[in-house]
Amino acid sequence: MTKTKLVYITRKTHFNAAHRLYNPLFTDEENEVRFGKCANKNFHGHNFDLFVTIKGIADTQTGMVMDLRILKTVMQEYVVDKLDHKNINEDVDFMKGKMASIENLVAEIWNQLEPHISKGTLHCIKLCETDNQFVEYYGE
Amino acid sequence: MTKTKLVYITRKTHFNAAHRLYNPLFTDEENEVRFGKCANKNFHGHNFDLFVTIKGIADTQTGMVMDLRILKTVMQEYVVDKLDHKNINEDVDFMKGKMASIENLVAEIWNQLEPHISKGTLHCIKLCETDNQFVEYYGE
Amino acid sequence: MTKTKLVYITRKTHFNAAHRLYNPLFTDEENEVRFGKCANKNFHGHNFDLFVTIKGIADTQTGMVMDLRILKTVMQEYVVDKLDHKNINEDVDFMKGKMASIENLVAEIWNQLEPHISKGTLHCIKLCETDNQFVEYYGE
Amino acid sequence: MTKTKLVYITRKTHFNAAHRLYNPLFTDEENEVRFGKCANKNFHGHNFDLFVTIKGIADTQTGMVMDLRILKTVMQEYVVDKLDHKNINEDVDFMKGKMASIENLVAEIWNQLEPHISKGTLHCIKLCETDNQFVEYYGE
Amino acid sequence: MTKTKLVYITRKTHFNAAHRLYNPLFTDEENEVRFGKCANKNFHGHNFDLFVTIKGIADTQTGMVMDLRILKTVMQEYVVDKLDHKNINEDVDFMKGKMASIENLVAEIWNQLEPHISKGTLHCIKLCETDNQFVEYYGE
Amino acid sequence: MTKTKLVYITRKTHFNAAHRLYNPLFTDEENEVRFGKCANKNFHGHNFDLFVTIKGIADTQTGMVMDLRILKTVMQEYVVDKLDHKNINEDVDFMKGKMASIENLVAEIWNQLEPHISKGTLHCIKLCETDNQFVEYYGE
Repeated sequence: MTKTKLVYITRKTHFNAAHRLYNPLFTDEENEVRFGKCANKNFHGHNFDLFVTIKGIADTQTGMVMDLRILKTVMQEYVVDKLDHKNINEDVDFMKGKMASIENLVAEIWNQLEPHISKGTLHCIKLCETDNQFVEYYGE
Repeated sequence: MTKTKLVYITRKTHFNAAHRLYNPLFTDEENEVRFGKCANKNFHGHNFDLFVTIKGIADTQTGMVMDLRILKTVMQEYVVDKLDHKNINEDVDFMKGKMASIENLVAEIWNQLEPHISKGTLHCIKLCETDNQFVEYYGE
Repeated sequence: MTKTKLVYITRKTHFNAAHRLYNPLFTDEENEVRFGKCANKNFHGHNFDLFVTIKGIADTQTGMVMDLRILKTVMQEYVVDKLDHKNINEDVDFMKGKMASIENLVAEIWNQLEPHISKGTLHCIKLCETDNQFVEYYGE
Repeated sequence: MTKTKLVYITRKTHFNAAHRLYNPLFTDEENEVRFGKCANKNFHGHNFDLFVTIKGIADTQTGMVMDLRILKTVMQEYVVDKLDHKNINEDVDFMKGKMASIENLVAEIWNQLEPHISKGTLHCIKLCETDNQFVEYYGE
Repeated sequence: MTKTKLVYITRKTHFNAAHRLYNPLFTDEENEVRFGKCANKNFHGHNFDLFVTIKGIADTQTGMVMDLRILKTVMQEYVVDKLDHKNINEDVDFMKGKMASIENLVAEIWNQLEPHISKGTLHCIKLCETDNQFVEYYGE
Repeated sequence: MTKTKLVYITRKTHFNAAHRLYNPLFTDEENEVRFGKCANKNFHGHNFDLFVTIKGIADTQTGMVMDLRILKTVMQEYVVDKLDHKNINEDVDFMKGKMASIENLVAEIWNQLEPHISKGTLHCIKLCETDNQFVEYYGE
């Protein structure tokens, strides 16, 4: 075959964090109306699952797109260590001044990871907040 | 960054329903040949999982593509209430006169939901019949 | 060690079936009150997961409590073949005249399997109707 | 058969909450030593899964141990409504003055539910904090 | 609607196999550096999950893109029978002389299956090695 | 309440290993008859999930039965490090001379862990070989 073997490889990790949906520009009543119980002032939390997908051509010598041990280390250092057992509204530098929604979080995680993907291309980040709700982001 | 934050957000729900694969234009023998045990005249059933994906840009004030509480209500009213604890062949108006296959069902669920997606764009519907079998539909 | 190596070994299988909760001694209204949407006259259905646990001492020559290929065959012949793609109320001999509840079904599955467990002892049967609901039965 | 059909039936639910492990009688350093990142002062959180098991004899008329719609309502009112999207340390009356560990939480959930189980007997409560960690409590 | 009902249908299967990452052109030390514990000389193994997605238009008479019983048979004969309870490095003809990575394996599984897809088009193969790691291949 | 708060706490881990079922006292034909494809001479493998349950009374000061970080370390050192990415028949000291069945493996894992459980009592070890098959052992 003359195929290039363009493969998408995904590594999963997870972190446990607290957050709330709250916009300081809104009144408390407005926050309550827009975000309901997600606005609870003492926070609530989730077990987040994070899937990072790299797109690339399998190397003929190693059979691999990239060394997943490196990806695992990058994900741990630039994402999990900053989010695990933290409060997303209070403790996370790259979320300062932003709504702590999963839509914003997934885009910021992309920004954290992209400079450190040295082989292949960052293709997709999927972030699961509960079994019933998740977001995907392709860097657009 | 000048990215638009185009995010794909997915909400999952489920329903339990009965169905059978049976075409009244075929003889019973033909139905048996084409559909095997799925043609069983007294029906069989499944726990269906349904994933609805909306594509859109995260709002700067709320951090959200759309209010998922609204999506949840729409999915409940236009899909789950019509399918849960029902017989797809006998009880569901939008499946009348159609083969009760998951291929047809996923396309009809799209038609039920699309008019009610008021923010963002309906991107994909995924319908899982068993742990081993599912369909995806992008409205094409 | 002088332990006997008393091990509990479990094999899982699944089947897809239709049923309804309906007692012919009740009026339709009474059935509706007691069973709600589970009484739907055209049936609904589930993907059932079935776990069968055998208790026994690991054989020193084979390292096994029993040959699980035999257990798998027994489960297929006496349970799955009778329930898969069937209507529990209409098609299943050992459920005739009984309410098609999972409480009754798990006890009848015990009765079907027990005579065919030739090595070790039948310990527990677990029957899952949905991700949110399951029963366990120990033959008492 | 003369068996009594003693069945164990389990209903699952879930809630998302924040907590921290922190004993006010300890210094901050001591809390850090004993609880590590679980002591983070701005809290972290989890998606908790809760399984409640009732033990009882299947009724001959209904085929059921108890009406699970009632159990679902009881679980919602006395547990989920008090914990979902809350901070276990700050917002939950029955956890006031107690360490917010899952060991304590599962025992207090038992105390909340037991008075409201009107049919069958409360047998076990299982509380899952993450995919890797859970507790079970039998009321002893 | 004038939509063509272009549906993506996926069938899952699984196999249990042993492998190691080892390139005979490298020294043992080099293999150890590049592949770590995955190079263990006596092999290690996984429960692999395999998802095969076919893209096609639902037939108006049968409501189906293709007969999934045929797809199941093709997946069993050309993939599962050759990989299940085998050693990927030693026992599998189509992996001879290739690194036993999942990136290579998913591309070779594509080559095995594609000639036997008689209805619809092979769209994607997803191969999961662990809960934390999987690859996808679209035949490019 | 005067309850002692006797809680069962479970920690999960996993390892990927190769094995085969083969008794050197049997001929190859006998091994083939008794163990089928599990006897494949070049081995096969699995992703094993391991659940360790400790039974004990929640400490009033910490709210915990034991420090799960210690249990995690013990499980890693005495079990996972010896089994992960290994061949159970060839590489694992405590399985030397024993059939590499999960029934034997779960009992030997008990023997490895029990001396290192310093708080609470080792109650149960559950070892899952595939999604369809697992064993439990209570030290008897």
